[in-house]
Amino acid sequence: MTLSQDSHPFPTLAAPESFHVYDTTLRDGAQQEGLRLSVADKLKIAGHLDAFGVTFIEGGWPGANPGDTAFFDAVRAGEITLRNATLSAFGSTRRVGRVAADDPMVAALRDSGAPVACLVAKSHVRHVEQALRTTLAENLEMIADTVAHLVAEGQRVFLDAEHFFDGYRADRAYALEVVRTAADAGAEVVVLCDTNGGMLPSWMPDIVGDAAEVGVDLGIHCHNDSGCAVANTIAAVEAGAVHVQGTINGYGERTGNADLLQVVANLELKYGWEVLPPGSLAEATRISHAIAGVTNSPSSPRQPYVGQSAFAHKAGLHASAIRVDPMLYQHVDPAVVGNDMRTLVSDMAGRANIQLKGEELGYDLSDRDVAAQVTDAIKEREARGYSYEAADASFELLLRDVTGQLPRPFEVQRWRVNTHSNGTDETDTEATVKLSAKAIERLFVGEGNGPVNALDHALRRALADAYPQVLAYDLTDYRVRILDEGHGTDATVRVLIDTTDGERSWTTVGVGENVIEASWEALSDAYLYGLITE
Amino acid sequence: MTLSQDSHPFPTLAAPESFHVYDTTLRDGAQQEGLRLSVADKLKIAGHLDAFGVTFIEGGWPGANPGDTAFFDAVRAGEITLRNATLSAFGSTRRVGRVAADDPMVAALRDSGAPVACLVAKSHVRHVEQALRTTLAENLEMIADTVAHLVAEGQRVFLDAEHFFDGYRADRAYALEVVRTAADAGAEVVVLCDTNGGMLPSWMPDIVGDAAEVGVDLGIHCHNDSGCAVANTIAAVEAGAVHVQGTINGYGERTGNADLLQVVANLELKYGWEVLPPGSLAEATRISHAIAGVTNSPSSPRQPYVGQSAFAHKAGLHASAIRVDPMLYQHVDPAVVGNDMRTLVSDMAGRANIQLKGEELGYDLSDRDVAAQVTDAIKEREARGYSYEAADASFELLLRDVTGQLPRPFEVQRWRVNTHSNGTDETDTEATVKLSAKAIERLFVGEGNGPVNALDHALRRALADAYPQVLAYDLTDYRVRILDEGHGTDATVRVLIDTTDGERSWTTVGVGENVIEASWEALSDAYLYGLITE
Repeated sequence: MTLSQDSHPFPTLAAPESFHVYDTTLRDGAQQEGLRLSVADKLKIAGHLDAFGVTFIEGGWPGANPGDTAFFDAVRAGEITLRNATLSAFGSTRRVGRVAADDPMVAALRDSGAPVACLVAKSHVRHVEQALRTTLAENLEMIADTVAHLVAEGQRVFLDAEHFFDGYRADRAYALEVVRTAADAGAEVVVLCDTNGGMLPSWMPDIVGDAAEVGVDLGIHCHNDSGCAVANTIAAVEAGAVHVQGTINGYGERTGNADLLQVVANLELKYGWEVLPPGSLAEATRISHAIAGVTNSPSSPRQPYVGQSAFAHKAGLHASAIRVDPMLYQHVDPAVVGNDMRTLVSDMAGRANIQLKGEELGYDLSDRDVAAQVTDAIKEREARGYSYEAADASFELLLRDVTGQLPRPFEVQRWRVNTHSNGTDETDTEATVKLSAKAIERLFVGEGNGPVNALDHALRRALADAYPQVLAYDLTDYRVRILDEGHGTDATVRVLIDTTDGERSWTTVGVGENVIEASWEALSDAYLYGLITE
Repeated sequence: MTLSQDSHPFPTLAAPESFHVYDTTLRDGAQQEGLRLSVADKLKIAGHLDAFGVTFIEGGWPGANPGDTAFFDAVRAGEITLRNATLSAFGSTRRVGRVAADDPMVAALRDSGAPVACLVAKSHVRHVEQALRTTLAENLEMIADTVAHLVAEGQRVFLDAEHFFDGYRADRAYALEVVRTAADAGAEVVVLCDTNGGMLPSWMPDIVGDAAEVGVDLGIHCHNDSGCAVANTIAAVEAGAVHVQGTINGYGERTGNADLLQVVANLELKYGWEVLPPGSLAEATRISHAIAGVTNSPSSPRQPYVGQSAFAHKAGLHASAIRVDPMLYQHVDPAVVGNDMRTLVSDMAGRANIQLKGEELGYDLSDRDVAAQVTDAIKEREARGYSYEAADASFELLLRDVTGQLPRPFEVQRWRVNTHSNGTDETDTEATVKLSAKAIERLFVGEGNGPVNALDHALRRALADAYPQVLAYDLTDYRVRILDEGHGTDATVRVLIDTTDGERSWTTVGVGENVIEASWEALSDAYLYGLITE
């Protein structure tokens, strides 16, 4: 039998010259349930977006939302200087029966200081008639009038054709007439919006191709209600859209918007386009997590490209092949998006995985007996509820303990915490910690906002004489997970604590039926790890 | 101007007669970082999958993983009876240089008791040569030998062609030869696997169409590394695949597998197929959350179709149009997937949203002054860190408080909690609560695993004489969120507590700089809400 080396590369796609990336994290992303952004948050996010190199940043809806108005004021006041991106203000076409020049909402756009106005307009007959409650003709006049007015006032205008795809299904001619009206009035880009997120990728090419006949640059704005926002966006680009809208981390109302990081990574890595300035894509993971930090919205470990698990390998089958060639088990090199390949320690993993993980941390586990001892210790602790996948520092402490390489810079004799309330808002919490460090017994008390904070203060004071460097340690996150749901508040809990000394960050884990006890374990291990790895 | 009513329905697609849904939550889903399933967990999940109506349940890899072997033993021992689904056992082709009949791993498949064996086989030349370390010809013989042996032994055989799409790119002829070899040896379905998850939907039709020339039924197995797993699966089905693999909630290694709930919902709702037994799709939300409960993996609120936010409307623009016709702002009716439309209370929302929310709960907020008062109270509390989007019970308490409809079945005078440890594993926690209920002062002590549990016990005992129904209350989840990261353990925290009385469930929120104080607020409000809404 002979087999030909019959190589079939995947399709190529030429990049259009005028391609834009239009970020709407600050406007449509902010619609997400549970997400609330202050003006300071918005300025921070805008800084990250600008550094990342998106072409446009939609800052919000001035006039409709006091926080958004304040954001545009802050940009105008010079509180942030955009180096790469152009600012855009979102707003709607003038109200029914008004003249654009006299509409206060249109004035808010004009006065926002943003070089671009992105107008939302109805393109679905039923939305015009039932939500806007006007005639189809008046809606077109509202579009023409508002676009022409802002263009005449010197703003560049993009038009979001809301519900375009559903509108096309209901009345193709009217939906296309909206595109044509906006283009004729001077809109630079008409953005086809899958506002309800119900499209499938294979439905995109015909409709986008049909709209392209109008002759204006088209954009695409997708929501993820069918689980296809990224794919729909790429499909529209393949069909000719030159402007993609989306949000960082896919934030947005309901199921969210197309995740701009995934859209950009796909276009750069699957089609070889230069969508962002050179070097920017390698910042994707950092930018994603930095913005998640500002929004205080937990990142999904499974998020494509930038998630903590996105390049994490657990299966033994995979782990052994990865030693041969990592690219056999990765669609792209994680470094190109600033992410890392990780090998996971877990009870599904055999000795090979743990050896690999040990090597990553700089320990020699080539001795089979030692590797087996470590593996057994991990399995035993995982059975009790520990998880080392997210707690590298605790894994290293365990590894050192089992291999006899764990120094003990301090020994704790006892700790206590008391919280008292008189039934009003006044609550006192006090903790005491007794330990010995550098051969001296030390008993200290600390108070704090809650028991873990009080323990942290007492422990820090008790250690500070012997190890002044602990004063620089900062506990940046504290997470509690109930392990056996349905057991109410007496369930086993797992606590994860993130600590930083300003340069490095590390995560420790504690497990117990008592949340304070589990927190104490993670807390004291955080100090231990910091001290022994300096 | 005249506009035609030119309706353009989206494309249709005929359902193939032999269409299967093949669930691999218990095997590939279990590869997810942080996910660990006991045999009992697997039996519970299998029960949910069977009730949901998937055609096949892949139970695991017998022989490779002790837990998986035990699962197949448990099914054989009758610990679960599958009413709808057929059980499948996953395994690999025989080892290099063996005979299938003598390979212990093949024997484990044969002896698993599963009517179907799903064999994984290499279909990428570099994987054969570098990971498997054998010749291309031997790999084909391994496939032919193993498939033929299991078919002869009476098992139905499916073949997962691993890395098929990357393999097709590297060597089209060899990848197709793998499909042909498996089909010739008796495999019923050959599953094309995008193992590294790097495909885009528009690349699917040509390759799937090419493989279809072999003449065997094709399946599709996608990972989500490009953010396109669901879209790629649908694209393969559009191109003729009659078998879809995926996992509930998209669990899986790295970025996860195609979410079967989204794939099935798209096929049923976008193409009108009857993929599941009648009525099953309306169980999708319940099944998703039930399985998330077993895996103890937090559900994404943004998950398409079944997420808590999937049909939640926050924007004022949307909320007012929703009063006219909910379907103007939804791609499908949430009831068809067992989900609900929700209106969110948030500081972005105006009075209209809060009135709508009040109506949902049965309160008349048509008086503008009352609605404004409630809106102001919510804004003030949200500014302090409260969030009512996830805490309907606390929202209702606030609404009753502002409108003078909040009874006080008990009044708390004081509470105290103490936790002591002698530095070993022994920790004691004790709480006291003093309150008056039905005009009698009551002072009770409780102990527990941690301060919130101890407070729960003390409060429950203090209330039980006056209100014995509290003994049925069960606190099912307790979540802590640090609001201002970077402040370490002295940050403001938000606590959410889920409570059930066996029939209803409700969520309360507490906020404070002291986690115990915030927990106490959520805890006492949980009892208050339960008592006043019976």
